[in-house]
Amino acid sequence: MGQEKRITMTDGAGGEKMMAFIRRFVLANFGGNAGEIPLGMLDDSAIIEGIAFTTDTYVVKPLFFPGGNIGSLAISGTVNDLAVMGATPVALSCALILSDGFPLEDLDKILRTMRDCASKAGVSVVTGDTKVVEKSALEGIFINTSGIGKRSQFLDGNIKAVRESRKFSYNWPNDSAVAAGDKIIVSGTVGDHGVALLSFREGYGFESKIKSDAQPLNHMIAKALEVGGITAMKDATRGGVANALNEWAEKSKTGIILEEDRIPYNEAVLTACEMLGIDPLEVGNEGKALIAVVPQLADDVLKALKSTKEGKKAAIIGEASKKCRGVAMRTSVGGLRVVEPPADDPVPRIC
Amino acid sequence: MGQEKRITMTDGAGGEKMMAFIRRFVLANFGGNAGEIPLGMLDDSAIIEGIAFTTDTYVVKPLFFPGGNIGSLAISGTVNDLAVMGATPVALSCALILSDGFPLEDLDKILRTMRDCASKAGVSVVTGDTKVVEKSALEGIFINTSGIGKRSQFLDGNIKAVRESRKFSYNWPNDSAVAAGDKIIVSGTVGDHGVALLSFREGYGFESKIKSDAQPLNHMIAKALEVGGITAMKDATRGGVANALNEWAEKSKTGIILEEDRIPYNEAVLTACEMLGIDPLEVGNEGKALIAVVPQLADDVLKALKSTKEGKKAAIIGEASKKCRGVAMRTSVGGLRVVEPPADDPVPRIC
Repeated sequence: MGQEKRITMTDGAGGEKMMAFIRRFVLANFGGNAGEIPLGMLDDSAIIEGIAFTTDTYVVKPLFFPGGNIGSLAISGTVNDLAVMGATPVALSCALILSDGFPLEDLDKILRTMRDCASKAGVSVVTGDTKVVEKSALEGIFINTSGIGKRSQFLDGNIKAVRESRKFSYNWPNDSAVAAGDKIIVSGTVGDHGVALLSFREGYGFESKIKSDAQPLNHMIAKALEVGGITAMKDATRGGVANALNEWAEKSKTGIILEEDRIPYNEAVLTACEMLGIDPLEVGNEGKALIAVVPQLADDVLKALKSTKEGKKAAIIGEASKKCRGVAMRTSVGGLRVVEPPADDPVPRIC
Repeated sequence: MGQEKRITMTDGAGGEKMMAFIRRFVLANFGGNAGEIPLGMLDDSAIIEGIAFTTDTYVVKPLFFPGGNIGSLAISGTVNDLAVMGATPVALSCALILSDGFPLEDLDKILRTMRDCASKAGVSVVTGDTKVVEKSALEGIFINTSGIGKRSQFLDGNIKAVRESRKFSYNWPNDSAVAAGDKIIVSGTVGDHGVALLSFREGYGFESKIKSDAQPLNHMIAKALEVGGITAMKDATRGGVANALNEWAEKSKTGIILEEDRIPYNEAVLTACEMLGIDPLEVGNEGKALIAVVPQLADDVLKALKSTKEGKKAAIIGEASKKCRGVAMRTSVGGLRVVEPPADDPVPRIC
């Protein structure tokens, strides 16, 4: 294997190449660090001393797109990374990195969106930082949000319910905790954000029908946790559903079998993906959670999800299984196809 | 007052203009948010639900400089923002934003420095994010670190000691808590980081004698808190000592009088500042804390600081006083000069 000398876009694109990069550089230095859910587990948040902690930088291009802007991503993405760990988001940071000359009107719009989105999620932005650099050093604006959360009031009950149905050694849902038999739920239509962004950016003309799904999912997830039986949750951002499920399969050492017919899509997203030759399972979402649940409680969790605005199109799309390795999908015509983890994201700079 | 339409470098430079920007844009949206020490108090960290939480993005140029690199800044700066609140740093995040083609050898050096610096501080990097963008969108690398901390084991005792000497309504040291009579200590020589960086960047030739002071201060600060009597602490980064003390004066509604002769400087920093026509008090430091202490305990705190490697050149440099407004300095020749908050930082992109 040749050791590359320079970083490339694919090293940050959320697929297999990014995982290789992270192992070689990030885990090599920080992988042994502490925590109940430490960095080495590469979950959506770390858990340390009972606190969920996560970070994301948003570099989306363009800044404004159908259904949202960089501000809604910056709040939703970080809130969701906390929520899928079973944490209740408590506070966010907001670190702005701006290029000299950035229009203040745009900044104001973005910050108002962040305020509104945080208010919807019921979380406070409590600390921040602002850096301004020369135009030659940065194009536009990047936003980093980090977030802290505390153990959800429903998490003990959720774990108890899992343990009534099978052995479960974890104290938090996580990527390594899925087991054969768990049902896999997606909380709504797949691929909207990435396709909306790509279409808008490239002028493909689907943007009237396809909007980003960027939204905070913490209230929806609280409803699901209240039911109980959840073993893992993940928001399917960079690399999409294909990447998220392959991470589960690898970390949990289980196969996952999807049923193509059960995956909810917006019709326009499917049409766009067919025309553009991209796989909607590999496209990033910004307001959809994958949820693994013990089979006994899957229907109840689904019902709870469907009772919320964010989850009304939720569906059970498959299950973890010993019958395959990695992720496989039973297609509409009856065959079984492998769902590979994408090497990189087919749509760059979507978040 | 004209309302500017575009952001400028000075809006992010740590001086008075940045404060105006923050009030107009950041506080307008997030200023009412919750916390024991909320965003609105603009301290070095927020305190919410007993957790100290802070964020900073590092955009220093060049990435490698005498005495450190962007990695040592990224750890030290965030550790210090937690420590000066009286918090014990628990965990850090590391969000990398890289340009396509960034040399992996440099990245590796930076990450190793981060690892070593975090290890020195006794804090874990537990969560991270990596984004790679086109060369046209970013020059090199920016790093955001956020940090969480818990209440120092010495903080209750420290606050108790303050209350034995005067009224004190806060539960944490903070920028608004300085009162007339408090002694002002600086933990070491002033101006090293900014001058080292400027000299190296511009090739002025002082770099053999002047090194960045970037270092984590949490162990030193723990020693000082153990003594007790500390009412406020602040690391004097962008805008330097002048900016930090003016923030104290404004937020605490007290004057501060400095004694020029008592301020510790590296001789080469003074020489460089004279030649370059810049005020060392306005230059950023990355490993120096300002500490306000009730007078009864100032000598003991000073002694504790001087017993540490980081604080061996600490000095009492003045006191809070009702005799002036803002910050004034008794000069070597006996006069009193106003120490203005810098409008912006004389040395851009130092952190």
